[in-house]
Amino acid sequence: MQIPWEQRFADRAGRISSSVIREILKHSSAPDVISFAGGLPSPDVFPVEEFKRACEIVLDEAGPASLQYSPTEGFVPLREVIVEHMASCGIHTKVENVQLTTGSQQALSLMGMLFIDPGDYVVVENPTYIGALQAWNAYGAEYLTVPCDGQGMRTDLLEDALKKRPRFIYVLPNFQNPSGVTLSLERRQELVELADMYGVPIIEDDPYGKLRYFGEDLPPIWVLDQQHRGGRGVAESSNVIYMSTFSKLLAPGIRMAWVIADLDVIRKLVFAKQGADLHSPTFNQMVTYEVARDGFLGEYAEVIRATYKERLLVMLDAMEKHFPEGVEWTRPEGGMFLWVTLPEGLDAQKLLPKAVARKVAYVPGQPFHPDGSGANTMRVNFSNASLEMIREGIARLGALFREELDHS
Amino acid sequence: MQIPWEQRFADRAGRISSSVIREILKHSSAPDVISFAGGLPSPDVFPVEEFKRACEIVLDEAGPASLQYSPTEGFVPLREVIVEHMASCGIHTKVENVQLTTGSQQALSLMGMLFIDPGDYVVVENPTYIGALQAWNAYGAEYLTVPCDGQGMRTDLLEDALKKRPRFIYVLPNFQNPSGVTLSLERRQELVELADMYGVPIIEDDPYGKLRYFGEDLPPIWVLDQQHRGGRGVAESSNVIYMSTFSKLLAPGIRMAWVIADLDVIRKLVFAKQGADLHSPTFNQMVTYEVARDGFLGEYAEVIRATYKERLLVMLDAMEKHFPEGVEWTRPEGGMFLWVTLPEGLDAQKLLPKAVARKVAYVPGQPFHPDGSGANTMRVNFSNASLEMIREGIARLGALFREELDHS
Repeated sequence: MQIPWEQRFADRAGRISSSVIREILKHSSAPDVISFAGGLPSPDVFPVEEFKRACEIVLDEAGPASLQYSPTEGFVPLREVIVEHMASCGIHTKVENVQLTTGSQQALSLMGMLFIDPGDYVVVENPTYIGALQAWNAYGAEYLTVPCDGQGMRTDLLEDALKKRPRFIYVLPNFQNPSGVTLSLERRQELVELADMYGVPIIEDDPYGKLRYFGEDLPPIWVLDQQHRGGRGVAESSNVIYMSTFSKLLAPGIRMAWVIADLDVIRKLVFAKQGADLHSPTFNQMVTYEVARDGFLGEYAEVIRATYKERLLVMLDAMEKHFPEGVEWTRPEGGMFLWVTLPEGLDAQKLLPKAVARKVAYVPGQPFHPDGSGANTMRVNFSNASLEMIREGIARLGALFREELDHS
Repeated sequence: MQIPWEQRFADRAGRISSSVIREILKHSSAPDVISFAGGLPSPDVFPVEEFKRACEIVLDEAGPASLQYSPTEGFVPLREVIVEHMASCGIHTKVENVQLTTGSQQALSLMGMLFIDPGDYVVVENPTYIGALQAWNAYGAEYLTVPCDGQGMRTDLLEDALKKRPRFIYVLPNFQNPSGVTLSLERRQELVELADMYGVPIIEDDPYGKLRYFGEDLPPIWVLDQQHRGGRGVAESSNVIYMSTFSKLLAPGIRMAWVIADLDVIRKLVFAKQGADLHSPTFNQMVTYEVARDGFLGEYAEVIRATYKERLLVMLDAMEKHFPEGVEWTRPEGGMFLWVTLPEGLDAQKLLPKAVARKVAYVPGQPFHPDGSGANTMRVNFSNASLEMIREGIARLGALFREELDHS
C-alpha cells in the first residue's frame, strides 16, 4: 500500500531520529540499565492511593456519565481547578479560555493543525523539544532556529527569523526540555515586544513551571504580554497561547493537559480537537478533577519538588566528581533535565551503544537541533532514577568519557 | 491573532455544520427533551461495576506503572484481546498489526495525517459519517461521493471516482452511521475487486459490527480482500485498513479504539500517533484490558444487542403508527441509527427548531452529505432513549410531520 507521506515521514524520521530514541527506550527499559534517557517523572511518588479513591468516587457518584461521550471543551469543574491553579502562576483567565487536551503532545499537534501549512516557518529554540518537532513535521513545518545560551533563547538574534513571517514562536521558558535552561526576565520582555511588533504569536509551553528547586519564579510570558498590551491599550486580547499539563503535576499515564488562549483561538481549537479525537476521556477528566481538587495539586507539587531537588543535587555532585575536564553541563533551577556538552570531536550518538553496553543510557542531543548541530551534546534526566542509581550511572558515564578522551 | 486556517475552518464549519450539531446537542441535553440526536450508546447498560473492579485491580497490581508513560503501539495484553475478538469476526491478525488509538475519531484523524495532502480526493458514501469529514477537512480533503441505496454504496457507480486517483475509499459496511444501511455481500466483493484493480486502499470503519439484531453476519471487507488477494497470490499483504472501537462494545468515555493494518502502514501510524498524542492513556488501556478479558466482550455484547434490538423494534413500530404517508425510513439490521426521508420540499434543518420546541430532537441529514444534498433527510438514534421516551418522541415527531404536510 503506497502512503503519500511515506517519503516525508522517512525523511523527517531520519532527521528527528524518533527511531534512535525508540531504540534507546527499548534498551533502557531492561531492568539492569540505569536510564537517564526517558523524560519520565518518578513513579516512586505517583499518588496511586489518591487515584484509587478518585476512581471509586467517580464511578459511585457520576457512574455511567463518567463512561459516556462528553463535550470537546472538557469537564467544567476540572477547568475551574485549572483556572485556580493558573492564578497561582499569575495567569488570570476564565473557564471558557481553557481547553483540555489528551496530553500536551496533542496540544502541540493541534497547534500544527491550526497554524501550519506545508512549507510554513516556525521559530524554535536550538535545541528544542523533540516532541514539538515531531508534531509539526506531520504538517510540513520548516524551522527557523534561534541559538540558546545559559539565559535561554538569544532574543538579540530573533529579529531575522521574525522577518521571514513565521506562523509562531515556540518557547519553553522554564527549565527547558532538553537543556534545563530558564529564559531570563529581560529576554522574556524582549521576546514579548518583538513578537508583538512583528505580529507573530508566541506558544509558551510550560510543563515544568511548578518544579522550581532554586531561585525565584519568573513571570510567565503570558503575563508579560498582558502587561505590554495593557500599555498599548489592547490587554483584552493576548498574543500568547499558553500550555501546561498534569503529566508532571500528577501523572503522565492519564494524558491530561490544557491550553489557555483567546476565545477566537479556543473556538478553532475546539473544532480541530473534535476532528482529532472528539474529546479527551471523560473518565480521566473526572478522576483528575477528584485528585487535583481542594489544594492537592499544591501539596503534591511540594512532594515532587523535594524528591527531584535531591536527585538533581546528587547528580550535580556526581558529575563534579566523575566527569573529566572538558565536559560541561547546565545547572538547572528546576525541571527534570540536565544538558551535557562533551568536548568537540566526541559524538554522543556514536557513544551511546558503548554507554548501553555499560548499562547506562541518555539521549543524544543532536535530534533536538532542527539545524542538525549538537553532535557532542546529550540530555540527561534526573527525575526518574533513585539516588543510588544516579551516583552509579554518572560514575559509569564519567569513566566512559574519560576513556574516550584518552583514546582521542 | 490571525490563524491561517481560519478561513478554511470557517468554510468547512459551514459545510459540515458542526455548529448545527453542537447547538442541537446543547438543546437536547436539557432534561425534558427526548433526544434522538446524539450517537450515544445507552448508559443504562454500561458495565460500571466491572470498571470499578478493573480500576481497583489495575491500581493495586500495576500501581504506578498504570500512571506512567507507555509505548505508542499500546498495551500488549489489550492488543491480544483485540486479536482474539477480531478472530471472532473472521479477521485473523497478529498483535503487531494492531495499533490502539484514542477513540476511532483519532484513527480517522491519523488516516488524514498519513494519506491526505490539501486538495487530495477521498471516496466516501453519500451520506457518510460526519466525524470522518471533520477529521479530513483539517487536512484539506476533497470528496468524491458515491450514492447509496438500501444495499449501501452503489459500487456500480464507483469506477468514475476511482479514475480520479483518490487516496482511499472510506466505507462503513455494517449498519452505517448515519443511514443504518448494510453493504451487501455482492457489493463488498465488487468494492474489493475495483479497489484492487485501481490500487486504491479501502478504510473499513466498523464500530457496530457486533451489534446485529437480525439476519446473518456478512464477512468483513478485510476478509474478502484477503480471499481476493489469495487468488492473486499476494495475500501476505492487505489493501484494507480496518478500524473498530470499544466505544460501542464497552463505553465511549474511555476513548479506546484500534486499527488493523499491514506492518508498513502500522509503522507510519505509530509515528503519526507519536506526534498526535504520544500514546493513549496507559491507565485506560490497562483498565479496558481488565474489563474486556476472559470473554466479557462477548457476554456484554449480548446485553447490548438485547437492549438495542428492543428499542429498535419499538421505534419501528411507533414510526409505523405515527408517521404520515410520504415519510420513509430504513429498517436497519443492527447498529444505533435509523434514517428518515421526508417528502421532497420539507427541510429537516428548518424543522428542527420546531421539533425542539416540542421537546424532541434529531440530526438533520444534510451535513452528512459532502455534496450538499439530503435536505429532506434526518438521522434518528434509537440506542439512547428509553422505550417510553421512544414511543413519545416518535409520536411528537409524527404529529409535527403531519402538520407540516397539511400546511404545505
